[in-house]
Amino acid sequence: MDRSVAVIGAGSWGTALAMVLADNGCKVSLWARRQEVVDEILSEHTNSRYLPGVKLPDSIVASTDLEFVLEGTNQVLVVTPSLAFRETIKQMSPFIKPGIKLLHATKGFDSQNLERLSQVIEQEIPQLHPFDMAVLSGPSHAEEVSRRSPTTVVVASEKQATAELFQDLLMNAYFRVYTNPDVIGTELGGALKNIIALGVGFSDGLEFGDNARAALITRGLTEISRLGVSMGAAQMTFAGLAGVGDLIVTCTSKHSRNWRTGFQLAQGKKLEEALASMNMVVEGVNATKAAYQLAERHQVVMPITFAIYSVLFEGKRIRQAVEELMGRGKTHEIEEVARLSMKWKS
Amino acid sequence: MDRSVAVIGAGSWGTALAMVLADNGCKVSLWARRQEVVDEILSEHTNSRYLPGVKLPDSIVASTDLEFVLEGTNQVLVVTPSLAFRETIKQMSPFIKPGIKLLHATKGFDSQNLERLSQVIEQEIPQLHPFDMAVLSGPSHAEEVSRRSPTTVVVASEKQATAELFQDLLMNAYFRVYTNPDVIGTELGGALKNIIALGVGFSDGLEFGDNARAALITRGLTEISRLGVSMGAAQMTFAGLAGVGDLIVTCTSKHSRNWRTGFQLAQGKKLEEALASMNMVVEGVNATKAAYQLAERHQVVMPITFAIYSVLFEGKRIRQAVEELMGRGKTHEIEEVARLSMKWKS
Repeated sequence: MDRSVAVIGAGSWGTALAMVLADNGCKVSLWARRQEVVDEILSEHTNSRYLPGVKLPDSIVASTDLEFVLEGTNQVLVVTPSLAFRETIKQMSPFIKPGIKLLHATKGFDSQNLERLSQVIEQEIPQLHPFDMAVLSGPSHAEEVSRRSPTTVVVASEKQATAELFQDLLMNAYFRVYTNPDVIGTELGGALKNIIALGVGFSDGLEFGDNARAALITRGLTEISRLGVSMGAAQMTFAGLAGVGDLIVTCTSKHSRNWRTGFQLAQGKKLEEALASMNMVVEGVNATKAAYQLAERHQVVMPITFAIYSVLFEGKRIRQAVEELMGRGKTHEIEEVARLSMKWKS
Repeated sequence: MDRSVAVIGAGSWGTALAMVLADNGCKVSLWARRQEVVDEILSEHTNSRYLPGVKLPDSIVASTDLEFVLEGTNQVLVVTPSLAFRETIKQMSPFIKPGIKLLHATKGFDSQNLERLSQVIEQEIPQLHPFDMAVLSGPSHAEEVSRRSPTTVVVASEKQATAELFQDLLMNAYFRVYTNPDVIGTELGGALKNIIALGVGFSDGLEFGDNARAALITRGLTEISRLGVSMGAAQMTFAGLAGVGDLIVTCTSKHSRNWRTGFQLAQGKKLEEALASMNMVVEGVNATKAAYQLAERHQVVMPITFAIYSVLFEGKRIRQAVEELMGRGKTHEIEEVARLSMKWKS
């Protein structure tokens, strides 16, 4: 088995995945945009900006030269922020030969035209067959993976052998990898969860309690699934690691930038202030915009997403938005998951 | 509409539901086992043992006399602990006329023979038609409901009109009620979630982090659904409020006795010590026993439940059990939710 892998992107998640691969005996070339990150990785074996306090395996090689990193490798992981995704993929394209297997582990939408990131790959690397592409998602804080805490993820590809190739490269005793044929659902789960995390931040910021939080997560999952299915995803993917699994970790963890942003807004901060205090991109804000437009395009009802949109972009007061969500249509309402599955006996 | 309702059981959940009904203008008779609880409710309008610091609506009447409480009422809520469920239902039976509508909001299994609680009702109150019975479940800490925090629940009944009757009685601005035709799934979600809460307590007690917790919740949900479907439930119910919703609130909240028990065991306490320190019943311990036997009976694979069983009842070390769960079968494994829904293209 060929165990040389290029990892494109040396943020916290790219670096953590490079560590997993190195732990598994892979020969890892890590591409970073900035020379000082490369220098630190090569000389100190640390990436202190993104994974403070973590020692990287000595075997990880780093470079700012895309061609050098991609040269002679048949297996590539792309792990850049979604904002830089298309640009990075464009730069990579000349060095991607047909037959190379490419997995991306970036969550979010294309910032320009709201496409899924595997669509961006198809557009910018046309020589790559869709069967040679995979997506990784699931509940996985990079910080915890870099500390080798038990973690489970999903690798999705249209082609089973491609999913299993990356499963073989990544799986070990602390990093458990499942496969799934649903690329669209796996990608959407990771991109859309951040919207709900913002909403849960609102609710927690208003001190609404555990019941309200669970309601938002569950009802949010239902509307995310609804959009996903209308876009071609399998309903059940949203009941798995890339759906509910990732949603839980994003909505209940203090690491989550999206949750913290929602929390700060509920406590009275302006969106610009909250975003400025974060130091990193808050994916949920773009995801809300994307989901809002996608919901209109696919004619899907998404009350929670629409409420969050109206708070972020139309100046609605958060308390009013949440109260409207709870109070809406006090008539007979069957739970949507039930409507999809079982009939009344009478 | 007849708005007189008997509530059987004045623990925290029964009292909170009585408050919701009273807030909605119902005439509520609340049955308590002990005279001192009745006296306090009547004289002080508090139930300080179960809902400390909460003022009850003056209109709630209480009594220790089952016949008196049930007399002349056509709508009954049963909200006793699962350990006392069969005994209470037996005592109620002589006073239940055919045509009465009965909802239970107790989570758990019959302590003797592990039956679902609606089966206990069918056995002990044979004059009650199954169409007249409903189940309430969902993510709902009683303490938060009694403080009127936003909460969502599901009422399930085989007959739509019965579910909608209780929906009408209970729904208000802070308590949102959905209906569902799946009695079995709604009941099992609430009973089985406590097993996973124990497991998450283990993981948190070992400081395994958010990724491991999300993995346990998601994979736990998958195996709970698997058992549920083999017992006649609808798969999708587990993606709703009575499934993932209740699971989230139980696994991520400090209120949860089951989580705390698991946490204490992981920190080295013995099961007897941990249970003794709780002062209330820890449903997850009985639920683990029930699920273990049901899984054998229905030939369902439940790795997480089996691991928890081996820790609780066979003396397995927790760290070893969790490591076995993560390390198990490092071969190609497709996510189960995927196997249920979408095929590989090649």
